[in-house]
Amino acid sequence: MELTPALARLMQELEKLPGVGPKTAQRLAFYILSRPKEEILSLARAIIDVKERITTCRRCFNFSEEELCTICKDMSREQSTLCVVADPLDLMAVESSGAYKGLYHVLHGVISPLDGIGPEDLRIRELIERLKCEPIREVILALNPTVEGDATAHYIAELLKPFNLKLTQLAMGIPAGGDLNYADRMTIARALIGRREFSETAE
Amino acid sequence: MELTPALARLMQELEKLPGVGPKTAQRLAFYILSRPKEEILSLARAIIDVKERITTCRRCFNFSEEELCTICKDMSREQSTLCVVADPLDLMAVESSGAYKGLYHVLHGVISPLDGIGPEDLRIRELIERLKCEPIREVILALNPTVEGDATAHYIAELLKPFNLKLTQLAMGIPAGGDLNYADRMTIARALIGRREFSETAE
Repeated sequence: MELTPALARLMQELEKLPGVGPKTAQRLAFYILSRPKEEILSLARAIIDVKERITTCRRCFNFSEEELCTICKDMSREQSTLCVVADPLDLMAVESSGAYKGLYHVLHGVISPLDGIGPEDLRIRELIERLKCEPIREVILALNPTVEGDATAHYIAELLKPFNLKLTQLAMGIPAGGDLNYADRMTIARALIGRREFSETAE
Repeated sequence: MELTPALARLMQELEKLPGVGPKTAQRLAFYILSRPKEEILSLARAIIDVKERITTCRRCFNFSEEELCTICKDMSREQSTLCVVADPLDLMAVESSGAYKGLYHVLHGVISPLDGIGPEDLRIRELIERLKCEPIREVILALNPTVEGDATAHYIAELLKPFNLKLTQLAMGIPAGGDLNYADRMTIARALIGRREFSETAE
């Protein structure tokens, strides 16, 4: 039973969002109906703005509202280190650690033959171009430790051989606050391989 | 860390929605960014339309895009039975059962002193007015079996005494497909009180 055509259409649109089923769509639609008009127009405006204003940075392919993103424009960042990530969400995750002050390169995906995504669908060619003209000395491959992430990292590592670069990847091991008892075998194995000298002061 | 101002503002707006935390807001915002523009404009349009087009039916206070809602306009519905519900979602639930063909009256809430909602905040006065001029013979109080719902039902029942009406409420008992073992004591007690003659053919 539909209450009104506008409400039915809104529920239909909301159901397209990830993780939103019919009941959630109904709840959201009724919430939207119940709020003051200005509040809802502000939500609609924010949705439209994101589509109208955001493009990708022409240098690193991070999301940006200008030709160059805030990170590329920030000349106080280390210009000799480049962190390669799969997508802008991963970039945000690395940024939120506060432990990285260099530049980024966003691939916009990983190689995944099953999904029909090959190297030419990613920003790999542009990465090579950057390395030819920018004074990069270290490339950090910060890809997820999954089959696709590893394959992409290996593919890029191969392409980067001709460049005289330090090539690194994120350390793998037990997460901070994690429990050995709940860590999977692969994580423990990688933590053992990557073990380091004990130091009294945690870094 | 915020990627761009527009994206940060969208996440902020999305976080206001019920059941949406920072991570879900991020996921939804990135989904919105990744979809074709027409699809997202259509979502924004649906949100705005709901606020601009929907009002309440002047007779039953159901949501409507016209002066009278689709149910009130449908003259094939029984004009002598009135089902009183707390809100349009409950109306939808009763409608979806397909077992009711009469009219509705939407209170838009229940009496709840703790939330500062008194009888004068609900469409109770309008209900009494309707009963004075419409040929209603039965009023079904279809309010939730909660403390507030019960209090509201009793309050309305008291007001309806002067009218020569059949006053009913929904049957309470074990839900269809339910399990006695998992039913709470109150539900079992009410199912026992409301027990009826065994019939071979399920109704």
